Amino acid sequence: MSKNIKVNAAILIIGNEILSGRTQDTNTSTLANWLNSIGVKVAEVRVVPDEEKIIVDTVNLLRKNYDYVLTTGGIGPTHDDITAKSVAMAFGKKYEIHKEAFKILESYYKPGEFNEGRQKMVWMPEDAELILNPTSGAPGFSVDNVFCLPGVPSILKSMLGGLKNKIVGGEPILSLTISLKTVESEIANSLTKVQDQNKDVEIGSYPFFHAGKLGVSIVIRSENQSKIDECNSQILKFVNEKKIEVVDR
Amino acid sequence: MSKNIKVNAAILIIGNEILSGRTQDTNTSTLANWLNSIGVKVAEVRVVPDEEKIIVDTVNLLRKNYDYVLTTGGIGPTHDDITAKSVAMAFGKKYEIHKEAFKILESYYKPGEFNEGRQKMVWMPEDAELILNPTSGAPGFSVDNVFCLPGVPSILKSMLGGLKNKIVGGEPILSLTISLKTVESEIANSLTKVQDQNKDVEIGSYPFFHAGKLGVSIVIRSENQSKIDECNSQILKFVNEKKIEVVDR
Repeated sequence: MSKNIKVNAAILIIGNEILSGRTQDTNTSTLANWLNSIGVKVAEVRVVPDEEKIIVDTVNLLRKNYDYVLTTGGIGPTHDDITAKSVAMAFGKKYEIHKEAFKILESYYKPGEFNEGRQKMVWMPEDAELILNPTSGAPGFSVDNVFCLPGVPSILKSMLGGLKNKIVGGEPILSLTISLKTVESEIANSLTKVQDQNKDVEIGSYPFFHAGKLGVSIVIRSENQSKIDECNSQILKFVNEKKIEVVDR
Repeated sequence: MSKNIKVNAAILIIGNEILSGRTQDTNTSTLANWLNSIGVKVAEVRVVPDEEKIIVDTVNLLRKNYDYVLTTGGIGPTHDDITAKSVAMAFGKKYEIHKEAFKILESYYKPGEFNEGRQKMVWMPEDAELILNPTSGAPGFSVDNVFCLPGVPSILKSMLGGLKNKIVGGEPILSLTISLKTVESEIANSLTKVQDQNKDVEIGSYPFFHAGKLGVSIVIRSENQSKIDECNSQILKFVNEKKIEVVDR
């Protein structure tokens, strides 16, 4: 794949516990940061409940619209873990015991401990490719462009290394942050002009209130460093003219 | 509205900073917890970029599919704040100066400080209803069943009180959590049986690793306390039989 192609992805968070507010999702930012670092832009995130039809329909929509789909959650041993079955249905594939996953878990657990509950975790879509799990044994899997990871953040993080050669990004997305001791309304018009003159660069403005400091972070994002540099100098020009202080953030 | 109707909502998080992983969204769990507390179930969450067409299309889809839509982000003074304009387009309404919002901000700021940048924050869809902002002046707004809130978590939290009579929930969604010193695979089959016997109750199973403790939290959710109690006693029955310890979490 050519390195200058823009590559995108969707993240699909599966789990009632996120929708109820009981659990604070952190996997989105983990995955988004990692995807960005390998040149994949996250175009959309959805959070859906543990309901088969919704998961099937959403997987089928997202996998057609984006280069990659990463799902989190629903691959454990309990009744509410229905991601593997739903992904099999989405692809019209059999849902069956994955022989390699079976061997991995059979040797991971002590003799007699690989019980029926645990064996549910080796049921996957036919011909799924495994994503190895260095933390707790049970692998994730991928089918075509859909990559299924667990919901527990520490386990998910430990599995990203196993995706490195499977998800191929484009040009890395570079970013530069300029933090200012000001409020957004003071810079809004000047920043709009910079954005208008650099339409293919993503410029975001984010107020912050942090450790007693109040200010605005301007984030410039592009695959092209020279475009970032150009925006940076245009921004610093009006910042100097307005005698606004640049601060660390 | 009858109190036994099930009421649902979608949350729409608007902002490139969430998709890039730069900012960890916390508004979803804030809103979901609050909505649950007033009997509104969150059916879906989407995170979309600061792009007009995507916001317009997503607002129009969600407002037709759900009783309420709550958006966060994109209502500040800078060029990337396009929520108000996009919601106006979604409803086919004019995007114009909201007279009441203008008066609020004119008196909020010192004379001379209500500049052009700040005045952008009073542009709203025609006939929008204001959601007052006790923290930083600039109000949110609603049009029909779509409620637009800011992205800054502390400001968003301070504005929830202003939604109380505008968002009307159904029966409150009750929940009970049972935390166990065990692993999911030990209880998976027994828990499946409880779920199968109580199909209209939502039973979730969530492993935890917290402060050196490893265990599983079972969460039972329903509008009906007696159904929760019934599931609780069925679960405690197998927990006792298996000699699993119940722990605090």
